Amino acid sequence: MQQEFASRLLEGAVTELSRLPGVGRKTALRLALHILRMDENVGVSLGQSIINMRRGIRYCSVCHNISETEICPICADSRRDRSVVCVVESVKDVMSFENTGQFGGVYHVLGGVISPMDGIGPDQLAIDSLVERVAEGEVKEVILALSATMEGDTTNFYLFRRLAEYSDVRITQLARGVSVGNEIEYTDEVTLGRSLLNRTLFADSIRR
Amino acid sequence: MQQEFASRLLEGAVTELSRLPGVGRKTALRLALHILRMDENVGVSLGQSIINMRRGIRYCSVCHNISETEICPICADSRRDRSVVCVVESVKDVMSFENTGQFGGVYHVLGGVISPMDGIGPDQLAIDSLVERVAEGEVKEVILALSATMEGDTTNFYLFRRLAEYSDVRITQLARGVSVGNEIEYTDEVTLGRSLLNRTLFADSIRR
Repeated sequence: MQQEFASRLLEGAVTELSRLPGVGRKTALRLALHILRMDENVGVSLGQSIINMRRGIRYCSVCHNISETEICPICADSRRDRSVVCVVESVKDVMSFENTGQFGGVYHVLGGVISPMDGIGPDQLAIDSLVERVAEGEVKEVILALSATMEGDTTNFYLFRRLAEYSDVRITQLARGVSVGNEIEYTDEVTLGRSLLNRTLFADSIRR
Repeated sequence: MQQEFASRLLEGAVTELSRLPGVGRKTALRLALHILRMDENVGVSLGQSIINMRRGIRYCSVCHNISETEICPICADSRRDRSVVCVVESVKDVMSFENTGQFGGVYHVLGGVISPMDGIGPDQLAIDSLVERVAEGEVKEVILALSATMEGDTTNFYLFRRLAEYSDVRITQLARGVSVGNEIEYTDEVTLGRSLLNRTLFADSIRR
C-alpha cells in the first residue's frame, strides 16, 4: 500500500524506517508521526544516536564482537583467559554470556550457523579465523555454545572436524538438560534423555 | 531488565530507540543490531532522515496538519474549497481522507478527541482555532469526521455547541452505516439501526 504523504521529509523517514526488521510502511508511518510529536531535541538525538552508533561501531578483528576499537574490550582485557574460547552465533549471545558473569575466557562470534536452507555455508561464517586462532597454539579449550538446533548441531560437527588436527585442544559443548525453572512435564523427551545421561552429583549443586 | 552493553554507542542508540512506541529495550537492541549489520550508508541515512524530518516538519498555522512550510500545501492550494472544513483527529486521518480522492475542501486537525479518562479536555485540542476560522465568515460547512466512539461523539457534541452561534454554517457528520465489504451478520446492531434509518436510494448508488 503506497501512501501519498504530504511531505517529502516524512516520506523519506517512512521509507528509511520501513527498512527495520518487522516494520512495514504502516508501522513506519506510526513511528514517524510519533517522532514528530516528540520534543525536537529528543527526535534529533534519536537520529543522531543511530548515526553515531553506525559510524562508531565496528567489529573486533580478533573475535568479531562489536567494538568501538580495533580490538574489543573483552579481547583486550588482560585478566581474561585467552586459552578458553567460547564460540557463539551472534553479538547478542556474547551479551547473554557476559550477563551470566560466569565466564572468564574470550569469545569467537561466528555470525550465524550453517544452514543450507537459508543458503548459509561455512564460507559465510567466521570459521577460518577461528581455525587460525587455534592454530596459533595459545588456545587450550574451544567451547561450542551454539543453539541446540539441527543447524547448531551441524555447525558443531563441522567445527569439530575442522579442529580435529589440533588434538591437544579440548572441544567442549554447553550442557544439555532441563532448563532452570521448567517443569519436567513440559520438557521434551530428548532433553529429558540427555539430562538423565549427563546427570551430575547432587552434592556438587549444593556446594556451588 | 537492564543489560550491560559492550559499547556506549550501542547503549545510546538502544536507549533512544526504546523511546519509540511499542519498542522495549529488547526490541531496541534487536533493531540496533540490525542497523549495525546494514551497509554503513544505509544506517547513516536512516538516522539522517529522522533528523531531517524532525527539523524540517512543523505544523500548518491554519489547519495544524504537518507541513514543511508555514501554510500546508492543502491550505495553500487555491483549487481547494475553503468554505468546507473537515474536522479530523490526527494528521493520519488527513492522509486517509486525501487517499480517498473524494474531498476538495480543507481540513482542521484537532490533535485528538475529548477524553476525560485520558485527561484530555477541550483546552488540549485545537478547538479555539477552529472557532476562530469559522468566525472569520468564509466557512459554510464544518464536517465532523471524528471516530464513531463515545469520545468522538462527546467531542462532536462539544464542537456543535461551540459553533452554534454561527447559525448559517452547516454542521455535518460522516455517514454511519455498514462498512463496505462487511457482512450483515457481523455488523453490530447500533450500526445496523443507523444504516436502516439513513438508508439511501439504490438508484443513487448505481449512478455514482
